Amino acid sequence: MRLSQMLLVTLREDPAEAEIPSHKLLVRAGYIRRIGSGVYAYLPLMWRVLQKVSQIVREEMNATGAQECLLPQLQPSDLWKESGRWDTYTKAEGIMFSLIDRQDRELGLGPTHEEVITAIAREMIRSYRQLPQTLYQIQTKFRDEIRPRFGLMRGREFIMKDAYSFDADEAAMSESYQKMNQAYHNILRRCGLKFRAVDADSGAIGGSGSQEFMVLADAGEDEILYTDDGKYAANVEKAVSMPPDVEPSPFETYEKRETPGTETIEKVCKFLNCSPTNLVKNVLYQAVFDSGTTALILVHIRGDQGVNEVKLQNELVKLADHYGGKTIVSLTVPDADAQQKWAAKSLPLGYISPALSDDYIQSQKDVAPKFIRLADHTVADLQNFVTGADQSGYHVVGANWGAQFQKPSLVVDVRKATVGDRALHDPNQTLQTARGIEIGHIFQLGTKYSKALGATYTNEQGDEIPLAMGCYGVGVSRLAQSAVEQSYDKDGIIWSVAIAPYHAVVVIPNVGDAAQVAAAETLYAELNQAGVETLLDDRNERAGVKFKDSELIGIPYRVVTGKALNNGKVEVVKRATKETEEVAIAEVVSTLKHWIMDATQ
Amino acid sequence: MRLSQMLLVTLREDPAEAEIPSHKLLVRAGYIRRIGSGVYAYLPLMWRVLQKVSQIVREEMNATGAQECLLPQLQPSDLWKESGRWDTYTKAEGIMFSLIDRQDRELGLGPTHEEVITAIAREMIRSYRQLPQTLYQIQTKFRDEIRPRFGLMRGREFIMKDAYSFDADEAAMSESYQKMNQAYHNILRRCGLKFRAVDADSGAIGGSGSQEFMVLADAGEDEILYTDDGKYAANVEKAVSMPPDVEPSPFETYEKRETPGTETIEKVCKFLNCSPTNLVKNVLYQAVFDSGTTALILVHIRGDQGVNEVKLQNELVKLADHYGGKTIVSLTVPDADAQQKWAAKSLPLGYISPALSDDYIQSQKDVAPKFIRLADHTVADLQNFVTGADQSGYHVVGANWGAQFQKPSLVVDVRKATVGDRALHDPNQTLQTARGIEIGHIFQLGTKYSKALGATYTNEQGDEIPLAMGCYGVGVSRLAQSAVEQSYDKDGIIWSVAIAPYHAVVVIPNVGDAAQVAAAETLYAELNQAGVETLLDDRNERAGVKFKDSELIGIPYRVVTGKALNNGKVEVVKRATKETEEVAIAEVVSTLKHWIMDATQ
Repeated sequence: MRLSQMLLVTLREDPAEAEIPSHKLLVRAGYIRRIGSGVYAYLPLMWRVLQKVSQIVREEMNATGAQECLLPQLQPSDLWKESGRWDTYTKAEGIMFSLIDRQDRELGLGPTHEEVITAIAREMIRSYRQLPQTLYQIQTKFRDEIRPRFGLMRGREFIMKDAYSFDADEAAMSESYQKMNQAYHNILRRCGLKFRAVDADSGAIGGSGSQEFMVLADAGEDEILYTDDGKYAANVEKAVSMPPDVEPSPFETYEKRETPGTETIEKVCKFLNCSPTNLVKNVLYQAVFDSGTTALILVHIRGDQGVNEVKLQNELVKLADHYGGKTIVSLTVPDADAQQKWAAKSLPLGYISPALSDDYIQSQKDVAPKFIRLADHTVADLQNFVTGADQSGYHVVGANWGAQFQKPSLVVDVRKATVGDRALHDPNQTLQTARGIEIGHIFQLGTKYSKALGATYTNEQGDEIPLAMGCYGVGVSRLAQSAVEQSYDKDGIIWSVAIAPYHAVVVIPNVGDAAQVAAAETLYAELNQAGVETLLDDRNERAGVKFKDSELIGIPYRVVTGKALNNGKVEVVKRATKETEEVAIAEVVSTLKHWIMDATQ
Repeated sequence: MRLSQMLLVTLREDPAEAEIPSHKLLVRAGYIRRIGSGVYAYLPLMWRVLQKVSQIVREEMNATGAQECLLPQLQPSDLWKESGRWDTYTKAEGIMFSLIDRQDRELGLGPTHEEVITAIAREMIRSYRQLPQTLYQIQTKFRDEIRPRFGLMRGREFIMKDAYSFDADEAAMSESYQKMNQAYHNILRRCGLKFRAVDADSGAIGGSGSQEFMVLADAGEDEILYTDDGKYAANVEKAVSMPPDVEPSPFETYEKRETPGTETIEKVCKFLNCSPTNLVKNVLYQAVFDSGTTALILVHIRGDQGVNEVKLQNELVKLADHYGGKTIVSLTVPDADAQQKWAAKSLPLGYISPALSDDYIQSQKDVAPKFIRLADHTVADLQNFVTGADQSGYHVVGANWGAQFQKPSLVVDVRKATVGDRALHDPNQTLQTARGIEIGHIFQLGTKYSKALGATYTNEQGDEIPLAMGCYGVGVSRLAQSAVEQSYDKDGIIWSVAIAPYHAVVVIPNVGDAAQVAAAETLYAELNQAGVETLLDDRNERAGVKFKDSELIGIPYRVVTGKALNNGKVEVVKRATKETEEVAIAEVVSTLKHWIMDATQ
């Protein structure tokens, strides 16, 4: 393509709408334009990047034996009602756009396709002889994000590859999952990204296990905890670790102490001269189940540890069927506002005891008729501990479960792992932290959707068995932007060769110079002929403008038909390193072909 | 791909939902599955066909210098309000799905992209130096069809290629249009389709001229009129022709005659012993302008001719600004119901005169305050004609404009051209008729959208000039199905080689025969290696089932590793003709490569 004929408009100024470097650069370099909140046009350069990423994804999917298809974006509400997700997706979380057609039927705009693909499998897969099957598609998806931002990172319309596997049983499902896991590693490696695969929470998709693929970047919205030996990495939402050891308790006998002005852990430890590891902290939440039931939640956790609310939410979901529901629709963090309300109800905040007073529980019956008590593992075996006395300005010391306080019946992991913790697999490894952008997520769904929709197959014995499913997503447009977030400098984008919109740009410093033009035209034709995707900057602009644009756009190799022509050479500049070398005109094609081959192996 | 591993389910029975052959075949052969009304899943075979068609479209677009991009499907209502189409598209015609997001903003789901692309051009194109530009995308689009049917032919979600050109003036726009016209011819030829490019009505898109590309098929929803010399073809909605000659009027003097029971042209001609060409027929309509104004419309047309309501609608739109609007939102055909209502208001139906009585016009003021009178060219010069007397059971004969009736001031073409009419370009050519499926439509838009949205550029003289636009659509998914509608037999689909999902299928008649399996596996590998896209039917099924499936699916070449193996040969069957020949195993690859090259030139 000739730049003189291309719709390319680069901007000098950062766009006001953009917060993070990759977003600014994609707008400035003419890759994307905002059309509405969280909605972007992919301009020709961006479209080429997206096609490159899609093609890598496609090749790796096909290599696993997965078959490409395309499912509808308009999804009948019936299917989502069968899976039980319609209300959660359109109302409670509200992330699915919904609309009414001219026949007054409700439709959703697909944010994901478990329901549709399971309905297809229900019709088409009948026998064990048809298994395994994996289908995938590369498609624009929709989410009515609460706060669309960061350009393509958190848009309301974005491109995803989603794949779904169908297997006879959990063991076979696990094999399909492992194949996809490998394919995802291949995709990210081929795209030239620094990344980590991490253990992840399965969220609203559900299922028994999942991994996220995180592109490492400072602007990432996710925190990753990992060990240097490469054996452990997890999203902080899911991460586990060994808590620090407990220091010996200085209190050997039970006693109630006046501890004025010690609402925080720090203050009470200082006042009592003990370690936070000697404390049992009692934290309150309010949870609303989808059945409508509201419960007051009391969590016991060691004084030096924090509650991981994603883990807590998952533990509560497990209890949902006791409360006539399937999930919880809100978990209220005890923020300042809530605390004030609670204080008004005479709760001694900062001094709550593990045995929350019956008075208080009773006083909450109108708003939270149910009461659930959970203990984190960190306090299960704690002895002679310090904790609140249920009276403002008082703590108890030397307390023990089974003595002063009832032993908790529900002991679970709701603890937040943090940087510096010792790893479970090896106490010599401590957790490191990094920021990441989630660009992929793979799930072992099991039979959640096949049971809900009745997607079964007949096994060799003639029994009807629900299909074991997996689902696997890559954010194609998000991946493309995350590549920029990971690789840029003050002058612009630095694409990896594999996903750059073009491999090379031939720049004519002065279009009034016939020799420069002739050499450039020849190289431009020869390079494209040889499969080196090449732009020709034949615009009537100053050389400086052209160099700046090529750096902003981030084309890996720049060929300049300038002064060196006198020696039968051109200048070739590598974008990433800015290394410059003079290459004989006759060797430009073979040189670039070699470099490209090396860079995309 | 091995059929043993592919999700392929073929059906013996025609699906109940399908009316036309191509729809039945695509469902039976496992290409598509219905997910909801007008909404289909494209299964792996279909997806390959769609990719083939898309790639041909892409290559031909790129050859014109057009640049591929991808625009959002979610479109802010603001842009459609700027162009004045929001209400027409979401309410009056209601073909655009609309929805409300969580911030209570209105969004439309794009059925077309003039607004979005013009908004981009407005921001990006500033100077004549950037022109011309053509952008295109291949994308899923949405229409809330009143009656979705015929599978992919009239779906609510479908794949389109849409392109938009931006030029400095009408002359340059016309050049861009001609390039696209040529590209469209190339696309259809390469897809192996029999088609016609026809003059077309521009409809709701607007602009000064347009052509439709019609795939010829009996099930087509459109009627085409054309001449055998290839010089004229038009959609019947737009077609023009010479009307038959007028026969001499048998009436030389004006007279009112009693003509009892002659409400139809046929009856009055018989009664008065004259030709229908001697009659002026007066037809009533009711039109509602977007300004809210309703008008009573009286059309004069020759007795042997019919009114083309699309042409009438276009003439009325030209008058819209007199009535404070831009377009008309409904044109009521005088159906039985309306006629009864009118009869109740003492209108002598069947005997209306060109001078519609003031009494009647007055009586309609409450429902239709405006009155518009239009004459078709066929009656402009008619002399001594017969027409209604505005009294039930009476006609007048020997009437003349300027004598008994006021000469019509608006003389226009609202006549329906019909098969057998003489062509305008050559009276020796008569119009022929054919049915077609509209798969493409190209428009010279002019400045309609650029003026509405303020998309201008600065010319060499420094003046701000609105961009001259064209827009160009191909229904990719509709094209794929129309190819089936044009090419099938009792056994199934007959794909052209260029868009078949695979070129060849190697069938193992008996998977228990090691020699058959070995030969097939070798050929399967060699063919794919040589770029012949090949399936392997290695299923444990009877040979008959496999042959039937390969014919139903419509793979162009079938290679059978059967009895001929004994002579070092395989049987190769051409799907289209069922010709069978034995080919030496060593020559299969080169033979098929030659055939494919010949078929896709």
